[in-house]
Amino acid sequence: MAPAGPRSGDAIFASVERVNAELFTLTYGAIVRQLLTDLEEVDEVNKQLDQMGYNIGIRLVDEFLAKSNVSRCVDFKETAEVSAKVGFKMFLGVGASVTNWDAEGTCCSIVLEDNPLVDFVELPDTCQGLYYCNVLSGVIRGALEMVSMKTEVTWLRDVLRGDDVFELQVKLIKQVPEEYPYKDDE
Amino acid sequence: MAPAGPRSGDAIFASVERVNAELFTLTYGAIVRQLLTDLEEVDEVNKQLDQMGYNIGIRLVDEFLAKSNVSRCVDFKETAEVSAKVGFKMFLGVGASVTNWDAEGTCCSIVLEDNPLVDFVELPDTCQGLYYCNVLSGVIRGALEMVSMKTEVTWLRDVLRGDDVFELQVKLIKQVPEEYPYKDDE
Repeated sequence: MAPAGPRSGDAIFASVERVNAELFTLTYGAIVRQLLTDLEEVDEVNKQLDQMGYNIGIRLVDEFLAKSNVSRCVDFKETAEVSAKVGFKMFLGVGASVTNWDAEGTCCSIVLEDNPLVDFVELPDTCQGLYYCNVLSGVIRGALEMVSMKTEVTWLRDVLRGDDVFELQVKLIKQVPEEYPYKDDE
Repeated sequence: MAPAGPRSGDAIFASVERVNAELFTLTYGAIVRQLLTDLEEVDEVNKQLDQMGYNIGIRLVDEFLAKSNVSRCVDFKETAEVSAKVGFKMFLGVGASVTNWDAEGTCCSIVLEDNPLVDFVELPDTCQGLYYCNVLSGVIRGALEMVSMKTEVTWLRDVLRGDDVFELQVKLIKQVPEEYPYKDDE
């Protein structure tokens, strides 16, 4: 019988299939390099990484819901906490914390101290406008959209740009009510 | 003190940092999709994936040598065995076997039954010429080149094309002698 309560990110991460983090890091680095070569403009690369992340996020959410036993979150606040604490741990193997809530509970920061995407990475001078980890903002945006929350995700701090941590601002734009459940034949 | 002998792929895999395999799978899928959009020609995508793999392989070899305690392999045969049994396990978390040696010991097949790159993947009709996992052939080629073996790596069987396993033929083209050891101050 499945356990009734939600599982911790650590427990899920320990039970899922995994690959070597360095392989992932180098593979991601190869994508970014490829996009820089093909698209030339750093802004275009940022957009493309975000879009790739979005496509990943809308699919990862299924694995997240299937493995985490998390039931429907009551509001944006709980959703953000669960995404940071369970989601990041479960996929990247590192935890994230949530801070800087605004008074309305519709805007917060997700802070990552450790980030396997950037091991061995240094940005050359020609790439100063690059948001190297922009895939992450897309993943968050895509995953939250699948649970009916339209968000804007913006980098506030980036270790590759000299900051001490990674900080992503997540702002709830609108919560789309689910009008009726999907039909079986869809 | 570090153990004296080589470590098994399982032991190394258990000790290295890892990320969720599904995240890796989806990230790799996003690259392939991106390349198909940007390059249009399937042959070009195959080439690009191979080149990306090569760039990854020449870097992964360092991690492999650092973590595996494998000492210099005596010949191509031993190198191929170690790459398949320790290398694949250590990075992808799945083992591979080596078969179909030719009489000279310069050509063999690496056979993969399980391959996390292709979970959930089906090739549409428009992509029938695609070697979806071509990054792997590049990784092998790149990694072997770093231990002075120039090889040609070719797909013989591919589950996405209806075969029962993945089979990569690895052919030694030339073994480049190392003329003198690296100096300490390099």
